[in-house]
Amino acid sequence: MIFSSKLIEDAVQEFSRLPGIGKKTALRMVLQLLKMDAGEVDEFTRAVSRMRHDIRFCKHCHNISDTDVCVICVNPGRNRSQVCVVENIRDVIAIESTQQYSGLYHVLGGILSPLDGVGPEQLQITTLCDRVKNESVTELIMALSPTIEGDTTVYYIARQVKDLPVSITTIARGIAFGGELEYTDEMTLARSIAKRLPIENYVNVK
Amino acid sequence: MIFSSKLIEDAVQEFSRLPGIGKKTALRMVLQLLKMDAGEVDEFTRAVSRMRHDIRFCKHCHNISDTDVCVICVNPGRNRSQVCVVENIRDVIAIESTQQYSGLYHVLGGILSPLDGVGPEQLQITTLCDRVKNESVTELIMALSPTIEGDTTVYYIARQVKDLPVSITTIARGIAFGGELEYTDEMTLARSIAKRLPIENYVNVK
Repeated sequence: MIFSSKLIEDAVQEFSRLPGIGKKTALRMVLQLLKMDAGEVDEFTRAVSRMRHDIRFCKHCHNISDTDVCVICVNPGRNRSQVCVVENIRDVIAIESTQQYSGLYHVLGGILSPLDGVGPEQLQITTLCDRVKNESVTELIMALSPTIEGDTTVYYIARQVKDLPVSITTIARGIAFGGELEYTDEMTLARSIAKRLPIENYVNVK
Repeated sequence: MIFSSKLIEDAVQEFSRLPGIGKKTALRMVLQLLKMDAGEVDEFTRAVSRMRHDIRFCKHCHNISDTDVCVICVNPGRNRSQVCVVENIRDVIAIESTQQYSGLYHVLGGILSPLDGVGPEQLQITTLCDRVKNESVTELIMALSPTIEGDTTVYYIARQVKDLPVSITTIARGIAFGGELEYTDEMTLARSIAKRLPIENYVNVK
């Protein structure tokens, strides 16, 4: 694409560094910003800049936070005996958005993947064990991806805390609501039959 | 979506004001910016801010420009007798990117649309007539959308300059390269037959 303005070209260049944004989409965004009031654009850049500079990671659960300890960890209404172990902050947002979980979180910052050079020391596993030791945690809910790396991470953590009085659960795998039986992969379908629930549970869940 | 950080929420809110960006895509962008170095994010916000505050409109052709007169208008290598009339700056970028046009432009800033309250005085039509009168323009190439509004604008401008020594052309309509005959709409197909070219022209164009 040939722009007759270096200012536009630079802005398009910056936007196209974002994931899933090509040159054309970047240009559309830039032209939209150009149409907006200067004050609105200032708000945009300020929000982005503030977000990058002021964000912190909660020192308990390593979730993103505006303060040293995140709003979930300081909330007295949350159940402190349950800790949901997730890979990243996006998972926290997804689970929080269901409004069905009232325990705490622990963000690992990734999953074990020797091929990518991610070992236990790169993840927040030691801090998780410390929380289990020092806080009144009775259940670790493993909400990791159903991949080999995810399973490896679950087993690794389970081994680390095996002598501690904590039970380990994993979130249910199965056919999604609205999912079609015939298009479900064999492993999921086989597992969803093996782990079938009595109908009362089904009704409760609904 | 429930974010546990106001900083993230604000940034997502700002991104989702851009066209075609929903909350999920906005979040993906924000998390990508969060992963980037603070310096890179500063470059991003600076480029956006500078673009919005420093951009000008060329006083000749009303294209976006970094200076009072745009790089196309000041380029001595451009053919000053041809002026391509377009609706907006996006059209200039599209035509420039073909690298096949060496004349000047005139950006109307919209097309006539009485229903949307866009009359001749909202567009850069008077300034176009002035250019035709005062500069050595011999051809106006109308590159407007093939809609009723586009055609109305073409006819309106043609009437305004009918006593001046300038010829008016419109860009060719027809079947796009790679387009399938059977999926082309009837009007385009009919017109492309009526306006058929001798084979030599076809070879030249290729």
